[in-house]
Amino acid sequence: MELLEKRIVKDGRIVGRDILKVDSFINHQIDVAFVDKLGEEFFRLFGGEGVTRILTIEASGIAIASVAALRFGVPVVFAKKSKTRNLGNDLYVTEIASFTHGNVSRVIVSKDYLLPGDRVLIIDDFLAEGNALAGLIDLCGQAGATVVGCGVVIEKAYQGGGERIRKLCRVESLARIASMDENGIEFIR
Amino acid sequence: MELLEKRIVKDGRIVGRDILKVDSFINHQIDVAFVDKLGEEFFRLFGGEGVTRILTIEASGIAIASVAALRFGVPVVFAKKSKTRNLGNDLYVTEIASFTHGNVSRVIVSKDYLLPGDRVLIIDDFLAEGNALAGLIDLCGQAGATVVGCGVVIEKAYQGGGERIRKLCRVESLARIASMDENGIEFIR
Repeated sequence: MELLEKRIVKDGRIVGRDILKVDSFINHQIDVAFVDKLGEEFFRLFGGEGVTRILTIEASGIAIASVAALRFGVPVVFAKKSKTRNLGNDLYVTEIASFTHGNVSRVIVSKDYLLPGDRVLIIDDFLAEGNALAGLIDLCGQAGATVVGCGVVIEKAYQGGGERIRKLCRVESLARIASMDENGIEFIR
Repeated sequence: MELLEKRIVKDGRIVGRDILKVDSFINHQIDVAFVDKLGEEFFRLFGGEGVTRILTIEASGIAIASVAALRFGVPVVFAKKSKTRNLGNDLYVTEIASFTHGNVSRVIVSKDYLLPGDRVLIIDDFLAEGNALAGLIDLCGQAGATVVGCGVVIEKAYQGGGERIRKLCRVESLARIASMDENGIEFIR
């Protein structure tokens, strides 16, 4: 998506070798009019799939998923990072390692909001190693729901997660980064 | 807002004496079409205030603020709960005690995304003791930004936060709860 690639080049900040900060329009400040264009593109890609629910993970996926969900006319469910050890029987639970934070989170979804028969579109901001998407796909599997695909804003293709997740379901990334360094960003088109 | 009061009565769950769970349409699953109606109401209330930015706090404020921001045509900034001790000089920092979780969080906003001259609408899902809103107002004060008001979805009026925050700025709550128990919920109109 050319509009997104241009915005990443203009406003993204590369930190170290592997971290791309998009804090000015997606991850801390949210340019909702821009995010609405991303939602429009996700609807173009997945609008024919009979999606019944959009699943994302807190916190930075919520805005993208919610704005996109307005076009799909379906509810959003966001998986929560649980801080408590004692979890009830009314939850699906998975573990997700974070590339950015270097830790592992227990992530939960209430059984009330992910049902057998659901056709789930998973939306997230980044695809790096694929841990978050794999965890969300696992939650859908526990629920007996069908994953129609993953809609990703930015895929860092050189980190291998895309290859891993495409074995499990359809993945559409609106921007795919082949490599990045202080000299710039190279996209896969 | 009658639509909201009816929805709270229909789908809210009272846990213990003081906790109202709205997990099925706001706090875990998000009924975005419904949240869009809340955004429309916030725009009716604050649309004439020259708002330049909407500020909220992760995680459950993000969906409401983002959907509302589409109507205002301004960016959203969400304050983040910081896990790290070492914070840079490029951040505004405040502390917020959580009524629900019984802990204190350090909450940050980048200085890039809250500016002197900004006219900020603060949006959050709940107003109970007022700690979150007071913290967000404090962040705006540090930035030299003007708070045009707080837009709250549900105010638990009996917990005193409304009185506290109305001394600081205009507060508009779409539903105000006078009391609640196993027999039901009484609203202030």
